Amino acid sequence: MRLNVTLTEAYNNAPYPMIGHGKRNVHVLKEAFESIDGDVDSDIYGSGAIIEQFQNKLAQLLGKPAAVFFPSGTMAQQIALRIWSDAAGSKKVAYHPLCHLEIHEQDGLKKLHHLEPILLADTTRPVLLSDVLGMPDDVACLLIELPQREIGGQLPDYDELEAISAHCREKGIKLHLDGARLFEITPYYGRSAAEICSLFDSVYVSVYKGLGGIAGAVLAGEYDFAEESKVWKRRHGGDLISLYPYFLSADYYLERRLPRMAEYYEGAVALAALYNDCHSAIRTVPQVPVSNMFHVHINRPKEELEPVLIEVTQQSGVGFTHVLRPKEGVGCYFEVSIGDRYAELPQEKTREAFRQLAGRLDSVDR
Amino acid sequence: MRLNVTLTEAYNNAPYPMIGHGKRNVHVLKEAFESIDGDVDSDIYGSGAIIEQFQNKLAQLLGKPAAVFFPSGTMAQQIALRIWSDAAGSKKVAYHPLCHLEIHEQDGLKKLHHLEPILLADTTRPVLLSDVLGMPDDVACLLIELPQREIGGQLPDYDELEAISAHCREKGIKLHLDGARLFEITPYYGRSAAEICSLFDSVYVSVYKGLGGIAGAVLAGEYDFAEESKVWKRRHGGDLISLYPYFLSADYYLERRLPRMAEYYEGAVALAALYNDCHSAIRTVPQVPVSNMFHVHINRPKEELEPVLIEVTQQSGVGFTHVLRPKEGVGCYFEVSIGDRYAELPQEKTREAFRQLAGRLDSVDR
Repeated sequence: MRLNVTLTEAYNNAPYPMIGHGKRNVHVLKEAFESIDGDVDSDIYGSGAIIEQFQNKLAQLLGKPAAVFFPSGTMAQQIALRIWSDAAGSKKVAYHPLCHLEIHEQDGLKKLHHLEPILLADTTRPVLLSDVLGMPDDVACLLIELPQREIGGQLPDYDELEAISAHCREKGIKLHLDGARLFEITPYYGRSAAEICSLFDSVYVSVYKGLGGIAGAVLAGEYDFAEESKVWKRRHGGDLISLYPYFLSADYYLERRLPRMAEYYEGAVALAALYNDCHSAIRTVPQVPVSNMFHVHINRPKEELEPVLIEVTQQSGVGFTHVLRPKEGVGCYFEVSIGDRYAELPQEKTREAFRQLAGRLDSVDR
Repeated sequence: MRLNVTLTEAYNNAPYPMIGHGKRNVHVLKEAFESIDGDVDSDIYGSGAIIEQFQNKLAQLLGKPAAVFFPSGTMAQQIALRIWSDAAGSKKVAYHPLCHLEIHEQDGLKKLHHLEPILLADTTRPVLLSDVLGMPDDVACLLIELPQREIGGQLPDYDELEAISAHCREKGIKLHLDGARLFEITPYYGRSAAEICSLFDSVYVSVYKGLGGIAGAVLAGEYDFAEESKVWKRRHGGDLISLYPYFLSADYYLERRLPRMAEYYEGAVALAALYNDCHSAIRTVPQVPVSNMFHVHINRPKEELEPVLIEVTQQSGVGFTHVLRPKEGVGCYFEVSIGDRYAELPQEKTREAFRQLAGRLDSVDR
């Protein structure tokens, strides 16, 4: 079968895309700034009323004395680990083998900070207390990512997390939360962001995942930690003269989307069920989502599935994904995260799209 | 004398401020995006049509094969020096003692990259060929800042620069241009940005000094250099999912202000003359500006001059500066950079303000 569009094009042109909040385009910025007064003074190198207000708001939301806005989570988290490493006098930090710092940052942690990561757990499940108990004694900081994105957004049970936190406190190991998608797990845990953060010494949250801002991150912790992180922010080249395009838009979307996290989570549970009921070749990881995200594993090679998905997307008008990634032992997979768009889907269109997908998978079955 | 406002407040409230383009407020962003279509897709992690277009435009403007947009000059320049250091297998780099990397970056170059700067020249003049000839043999890269901001924006003669460039090429020393204010020196040198850049292996320019964007920087050089700088950008946490708030606004203001650089330079020459003619306690550095900037040295202690400036600002409506800095052996000083505002000043108001300043300085003379 020859197709004249790529999967990305088919997805981008579909009238009913299922993933995310909307297109990442300039409108995201224009909408956020429409109601902001042009006379509002810029932040200047991390100072000024508007950045302080936003940071204070996030500190309160995360239940920490102080919060600092960063251009990126990459920068914020390397800095958090460096601060804890310097404080402990040990270069050892521990995290999951699929941690963002290990696989998406061109080894910045090693090349810039010379830290030595210890990889915990295997690549199919989150870090558990048993992994933590097996760490060397001189680990300065343990990073836990909630939910663990690269394995479909899995979570440990909350009491497992409490046990890890208690152990780290007892041993003097700092516990850092990679909470890129922290707000997205509050409905499943049934706990506030601040309550979850109380288990950790430092916390990073992203403002452009579930919150749907343009870019940026917040790092929160004790006052001294926050102050030290500002010095490192300057060293990294992240202390921009003006960061307001990011945090003012983050604030705008936070106001609109923080109240909708339960809805996104419930949408993920419902959509995962549609995938799991669709065809025996398809399953989601986790089977029942614990946040607004999950992975879809399809027992077909990418080359075989891609034309099928393009066709179903074009015929049904419903976009499943813009990209398929090959996965050893599975076939291929893609990531789903639920945002504003899911509630706007006409349910009959969605059901019809899944019927078409099931039919096409049957017809290509050998 | 008791005053109920600070110098910053008096300056910000003055109807005729002399420095810069305008207030750093949200309007700067709103104006730039007013005419940009909301449907334009965001850049994604350094890719996409809009960032590539901007980077290609800047590469052409700077006469280099490739250019990369960075969130900050701090990040861009550390990375440039690191790349040249790695290539040469030497940690030694050389620059002026008042280089931005030495005094404004919390030692990021040393703490993150472990480079070892050698300081050239003294703190009153730019780097000259004689300084360069005295460097150790194993210097990987020499950074030259044009104009040298911390000494009022001084420049070496152009043939001195050519001689430095020729020497570095002969010795295999990479030459990097800190061109934060590069466009601002083209009228004085009577040469295009590309012509000046041809003397250098790598070049950084800022988009928010004379160009008046929101924040951001461009690093330009050979294709391989640019590609390597993108890897380091990721490591630094500068490879944001979306940088368009900065480079689209930079492009907007570049179109408007690049053609006005000669006007800003001429404004600086004219305004410096007003300062030098005002009172024997006042002189500018350089005496005749060579870019759009200069420093004003005033032979009075900051505490004595500040109430005078507040009073003259309030009475004349003309803002001289928002801040005075103490300077040993001088008294105090402030920086002037000319932008859009200077052309809008009513000349009679300006002359009257200088008359008042001269009169008040006489009256506080002892």
